[in-house]
Amino acid sequence: MTAYAELAAHFGRISALSNALGVLHWDHAAVMPKGAAETRAESVAQLEVLKHGMLVDARLGDWLDEAEADDGLGAWERANLREIRRIWTVETALPSDLVAASSKATSACEMAWRQARADSDFKSLLPLLTQVLVLQREIGRAKGEKLGLSPYDALLNDYEPGGRSAAIDVAFDDLAAFLPAFTEEALAAQARRPALPALDGPFPVEKQRALGLKMMEALGFDFARGRLDVSTHPFCGGADNDVRITTRYDEADFTSALMGVLHETGHALYEQGRPQAYMSQPVGAARGMSLHESQSLLVEMQACRSREFIGFAAPLMREAFGGSGPAWEPETMWRRYTKVARGFIRVDADEVTYPAHVILRYRLEKALIAGDADLADLPALWANGMRELLGVTPPDDARGCLQDIHWPSGGWGYFPTYTLGAMTAAQLFDSAVRAEPDALPGIARGDFRPLLAWLRENVHEQASLLTTDELLTRATGRPLDAGVFKAHLARRYLDAA
Amino acid sequence: MTAYAELAAHFGRISALSNALGVLHWDHAAVMPKGAAETRAESVAQLEVLKHGMLVDARLGDWLDEAEADDGLGAWERANLREIRRIWTVETALPSDLVAASSKATSACEMAWRQARADSDFKSLLPLLTQVLVLQREIGRAKGEKLGLSPYDALLNDYEPGGRSAAIDVAFDDLAAFLPAFTEEALAAQARRPALPALDGPFPVEKQRALGLKMMEALGFDFARGRLDVSTHPFCGGADNDVRITTRYDEADFTSALMGVLHETGHALYEQGRPQAYMSQPVGAARGMSLHESQSLLVEMQACRSREFIGFAAPLMREAFGGSGPAWEPETMWRRYTKVARGFIRVDADEVTYPAHVILRYRLEKALIAGDADLADLPALWANGMRELLGVTPPDDARGCLQDIHWPSGGWGYFPTYTLGAMTAAQLFDSAVRAEPDALPGIARGDFRPLLAWLRENVHEQASLLTTDELLTRATGRPLDAGVFKAHLARRYLDAA
Repeated sequence: MTAYAELAAHFGRISALSNALGVLHWDHAAVMPKGAAETRAESVAQLEVLKHGMLVDARLGDWLDEAEADDGLGAWERANLREIRRIWTVETALPSDLVAASSKATSACEMAWRQARADSDFKSLLPLLTQVLVLQREIGRAKGEKLGLSPYDALLNDYEPGGRSAAIDVAFDDLAAFLPAFTEEALAAQARRPALPALDGPFPVEKQRALGLKMMEALGFDFARGRLDVSTHPFCGGADNDVRITTRYDEADFTSALMGVLHETGHALYEQGRPQAYMSQPVGAARGMSLHESQSLLVEMQACRSREFIGFAAPLMREAFGGSGPAWEPETMWRRYTKVARGFIRVDADEVTYPAHVILRYRLEKALIAGDADLADLPALWANGMRELLGVTPPDDARGCLQDIHWPSGGWGYFPTYTLGAMTAAQLFDSAVRAEPDALPGIARGDFRPLLAWLRENVHEQASLLTTDELLTRATGRPLDAGVFKAHLARRYLDAA
Repeated sequence: MTAYAELAAHFGRISALSNALGVLHWDHAAVMPKGAAETRAESVAQLEVLKHGMLVDARLGDWLDEAEADDGLGAWERANLREIRRIWTVETALPSDLVAASSKATSACEMAWRQARADSDFKSLLPLLTQVLVLQREIGRAKGEKLGLSPYDALLNDYEPGGRSAAIDVAFDDLAAFLPAFTEEALAAQARRPALPALDGPFPVEKQRALGLKMMEALGFDFARGRLDVSTHPFCGGADNDVRITTRYDEADFTSALMGVLHETGHALYEQGRPQAYMSQPVGAARGMSLHESQSLLVEMQACRSREFIGFAAPLMREAFGGSGPAWEPETMWRRYTKVARGFIRVDADEVTYPAHVILRYRLEKALIAGDADLADLPALWANGMRELLGVTPPDDARGCLQDIHWPSGGWGYFPTYTLGAMTAAQLFDSAVRAEPDALPGIARGDFRPLLAWLRENVHEQASLLTTDELLTRATGRPLDAGVFKAHLARRYLDAA
């Protein structure tokens, strides 16, 4: 066997473990009885230990050196080696006592966070969150040394390979300068229109589910390789060729669960569209979190909150729930689905105000990792940032700096990918509808095939062959450009309002 | 760490893998999308490889020797060592090329069997089934040499530790002499009663499920540590503290799915009742397949086909489906649930004719493994056996020797545990209702707590502390005794008819 073949076989075995873990994770969230929690934790921990052991296998370094010297490899094989080296470098960067200390600190902090959030008491969380932060700095430093990156960029790199804060700063500063005034304008435009009539429920879960399934089918979700289920926190997970999305239903309001299904379907289409030949190899994985989020937001924000899609979907909603009256008119439904409101909570935000929530968190976590901000000042820094970026002041910590699980659970460097994803989505969608003249008319008749064909070719089937920048440049003619996102917002919230 | 502690930790890790495999197996049967089959097969194979590697770990032999010399261990620890040594002995008995050849042969044969059964064509299966048989003989010989057992007893020992064909021969010869005439008598008694009125459906799946859940709750199933789902072939599986049973629904007839749920609940109560302190250790496992089947049959045949239970359940069935008329009367329902009929298919057989199906298979597989019968003669041997034991002649191979998956899939030595289980169930139930005066009255009012308390103490919480014979003798005062089973049949099918 060549060194490349050894590596490919080895990572195929690792993928078999990852797929098992993916199904166990879905099971835990969607169907597992509560009393199984301890048993499950032991199974998952054992599989993680075995997987980690395979990722730091002593033979990998030699295989990599030998395979990288092999000049008979094609582009996919070379890209696979690049990904394997990145994963191996990161996985071997940390001493095992640092991994253990961080795992212990985050699980203690995550537990304390649930209570602190319920009590809206940041101070009680401060000692444990400080431990997490100190360890995250160490992790960032250790990885950064191996990768030649700053600690923050090294953390970011785990979620967004190739992502750099210098570039994010430029894009986010641009948005931060644009959004406050724009939000004012969008709200003013909205205020000139009549109030939205109420949608009277209840909307039975079974009917919501049936409608969600119908929409997933229209979008091109492959049910032979996936499922729709229920969980408290919606996600897209599962395994290769076994892509499982979840939602949660509210019988008083169907609109949010339905749009949640469409959002997760965007993630799922990416996963289902990855190339079969490399499905179990690192190069066959989704490129990074910003591209992943771009696929969910392209479906949700760009395609499914368009007038075209709502024109198709509103009659199906009315039919599904036996609705009648002006609340069910496509134009009214479109206005409901494009409503802008300043709020305190990121996950409830609309696409105009969402970036402010993300920019705030990105700036804070970058400063905290660099030691340029003091964690004890977080509530005040949070309130200042919210006022500056969004013009609101959170009434308490629960609706402020305690609302997200990311920091307590060790997810530092993740936040910027949400808004990078939104910008990427706008840019890809803009190119898709130019390249495929039938993409928008297709959406208007519930036929996503023209759009999906473009996404398959330009994004999904590329998997991790290229860097994110290369992929975007090839697909749209240029690297990430905040201008397309701003133009999209202006068209939807000023011109079209 | 002592050698015992090393072993316990090691088998705890093995248990974590087994639990993951249990959940993946459930997932495969109950919810997995079809297109995930290949991915899943790779995950399962990888976990099996890792588990096997841990079971033949080179350190185990030394740890066992050292721990067995430790005289500070209690009864549970010593029993745990006995189980670990048995598992280790069996797992290391086979050369890896024999394991691989057998795995290849059974998976080819199982696939061919599906087609052969559809075509009712035994001849087409003969070459592949011969390969399986030859390898099973070799496996039996290899294990038997290590264990000091005949090849057949060595195969049986995997399903029924301590089970020996010499003892089974005695019990089964006794039954084989008793059943033909008894079946005649039971059928004659049945023929003297009026015909059973039809139960008119349809019976919607959701209502069947709700009734099944209600019955599971009455039986004491712990839903915080288990689930009820749907699969083509009903089973009880899952993991420690995560016991998942399945059924399949027929909207034209609810009676069989409902009784299937009660049967699997019997298995599940055993799994849920194992001692928490040893849940992840070999000594904490269910004792063997005959005791496992005894728990399902005790619930299904002894408890839930009794007049007492049907008196409680019939009004709930009527209420669930809005039934009316004589078909829903408790006495009629009891007659339906105790109907005797000679048939060709084992899985459709009632408790009077079921042992004939099992005895036939047991005698044939024993002769085939010993080389005392020729596989090519199987259809003729099968037909002769059916005529002798049951008085019917199968019209074709599909309804004859091709009906079961056990032999094609390598499950030789399993069949006798079904009827050993039925006999054990009768004996345990007989002792339970004597020891707990409220057991039968409890069943009549849908309260299984008195019965369950006895089973917990005498069976479930014993796990693998004792051998099957010791457990039965402690619980009932004597080893397995066909007389109790025969007396049960006589009471139900002659006296009570």
